[in-house]
Amino acid sequence: MTSAPPRPRQVTVIGDSDPPAATVQAAERVGAMLARLGLTLVTGGLGGVMEAASRGARSAGGLVVGILPSHRLEDANPWCTVVVPTGLGHARNALTVLAADLVIALGGGAGTLSEICFAWIHGRPILLLEGYGGWSDRLGGAPLDHRGTSRLQVCRSLEELEHVLAETLRGRAG
Amino acid sequence: MTSAPPRPRQVTVIGDSDPPAATVQAAERVGAMLARLGLTLVTGGLGGVMEAASRGARSAGGLVVGILPSHRLEDANPWCTVVVPTGLGHARNALTVLAADLVIALGGGAGTLSEICFAWIHGRPILLLEGYGGWSDRLGGAPLDHRGTSRLQVCRSLEELEHVLAETLRGRAG
Amino acid sequence: MTSAPPRPRQVTVIGDSDPPAATVQAAERVGAMLARLGLTLVTGGLGGVMEAASRGARSAGGLVVGILPSHRLEDANPWCTVVVPTGLGHARNALTVLAADLVIALGGGAGTLSEICFAWIHGRPILLLEGYGGWSDRLGGAPLDHRGTSRLQVCRSLEELEHVLAETLRGRAG
Amino acid sequence: MTSAPPRPRQVTVIGDSDPPAATVQAAERVGAMLARLGLTLVTGGLGGVMEAASRGARSAGGLVVGILPSHRLEDANPWCTVVVPTGLGHARNALTVLAADLVIALGGGAGTLSEICFAWIHGRPILLLEGYGGWSDRLGGAPLDHRGTSRLQVCRSLEELEHVLAETLRGRAG
Repeated sequence: MTSAPPRPRQVTVIGDSDPPAATVQAAERVGAMLARLGLTLVTGGLGGVMEAASRGARSAGGLVVGILPSHRLEDANPWCTVVVPTGLGHARNALTVLAADLVIALGGGAGTLSEICFAWIHGRPILLLEGYGGWSDRLGGAPLDHRGTSRLQVCRSLEELEHVLAETLRGRAG
Repeated sequence: MTSAPPRPRQVTVIGDSDPPAATVQAAERVGAMLARLGLTLVTGGLGGVMEAASRGARSAGGLVVGILPSHRLEDANPWCTVVVPTGLGHARNALTVLAADLVIALGGGAGTLSEICFAWIHGRPILLLEGYGGWSDRLGGAPLDHRGTSRLQVCRSLEELEHVLAETLRGRAG
Repeated sequence: MTSAPPRPRQVTVIGDSDPPAATVQAAERVGAMLARLGLTLVTGGLGGVMEAASRGARSAGGLVVGILPSHRLEDANPWCTVVVPTGLGHARNALTVLAADLVIALGGGAGTLSEICFAWIHGRPILLLEGYGGWSDRLGGAPLDHRGTSRLQVCRSLEELEHVLAETLRGRAG
Repeated sequence: MTSAPPRPRQVTVIGDSDPPAATVQAAERVGAMLARLGLTLVTGGLGGVMEAASRGARSAGGLVVGILPSHRLEDANPWCTVVVPTGLGHARNALTVLAADLVIALGGGAGTLSEICFAWIHGRPILLLEGYGGWSDRLGGAPLDHRGTSRLQVCRSLEELEHVLAETLRGRAG
């Protein structure tokens, strides 16, 4: 091969490791949607939203990357195609969103909020799926600070999410 | 020497690198207060709140540690007694607060908010000095998530800050 | 899907970013071999040995992961299927080998040697492809220290490498 | 204060966490020497060479910084004046030497060797104290690779070490 095929766009999905059932179902549908669109899913590689999105994507034939806090390949949820153990503990939150062309958040506590901060600082577009509580709802689309380098956008449904996702990635085509 | 003297408690001060003048003055007074109390100041080693607090502490005879995002010792502000370059970029925000027995925040954008998140996750007590805008005011003392491992407390003045600081560190004496 | 398909084993290939032509050719053949065996290739995502192995693997239909020192997706060589920017600078050398079920080294300077150290510390098996100079030849298969947690094995040809690779991964089947 | 006093030079001492008694004694004498010269000692904050050097320096009135792999302040040896927990696991080896104006190694296994690699890559001068086995003896002063950015120098005694230390730091006066 003399020239490489384009890299599939990467979407990082973030949220709680122990969410309510409705959030799990939404995360799984988000994962499936990403796979259907030919996008690579990136998560923190563990349980809850991370595992549900991974199961949704892998079951739909998608590529799934898990970026772990621990140093052990075995700690990833079973739906990851590729596992990246970091050994960095919670500091790996800075890495999950760096691997994103775009970030999607559902609910989320302090860990998810730290990831939203890093996505904002590094100019990654962020879509907040409304209706699942936590920081995705609490932020309400207000800018995190004066930096205008990133878009933080609220989506009210999976349909709106899919639409905005397509629009946003079109502007960043590889 | 057959047994070591106790380690001075460490207080990390976080806030904007480009704050308004009133915030700079407050940060300098916080630094001086910490030095007077025999506490070691830790900051992110750069300008703004970090430099002002460092100047206040060092001028009052205190020990000042700067934990830098870059890999160069020369990038620290001149008031640091000890410089720790990390080369980690913004991921060093996870480290500044790990070096804290207690964290003090004044104002602050997305970077400061990421540090508050990591302090919360790791159970470091956090004092928010009110009146300087940004996330320190925006959070308003509400818990970041269901984790009850950390105290997030609003202080309305430097006097209240000094009082709460003494109380909190008494409970963590080394 | 109710149960996940097994994760393909991951092999990290390490070596210089500016090697001689013979090393580039060998790295490309190693990459192609890994793809043919259904293994996922992991590299540091940049040029030289990293890019040559990636080109070999991707051209043969393999999955290629690049773990970058910088924070920019765009800094990866064009053959990566998945890009993981870390923003950690040279400290990302600790991560490239953590993502390995097995490590292969060709030649290499101080950066490659640091990766061999981390692979050794974390018990990842290491194959040194002989004949390309640098630390892969200089170590000569001698243990790095008293830790018996890792195998460091010299391979004298690509044929021997393929044989040892198959044997080693059989013992670690997922 | 209108201008800051100069920062004391920082020297990182690296070596095994479980060394023989002769190495422990030498490390303690190195620590004491650094304190006597007004230099700040940096170590990885744990036992063995790190603790012995720290005990030597602190007992002689010196400033001691420990940069830990874990996220807990309590994991440092008791001789540290300042503790910097990183939570990065073995990747903190990239940080201990970044905090050095100069590095001194005694003995050492794969962990110490990884630190020597990072010191080399980042151009920190490295003094190898001969006679304590491990990589400090095994390297024998040969360059790690073609990069000419760092000096790697063998010292045959504590007296020679003190002499070379003074010479090297003179060239880097802050």
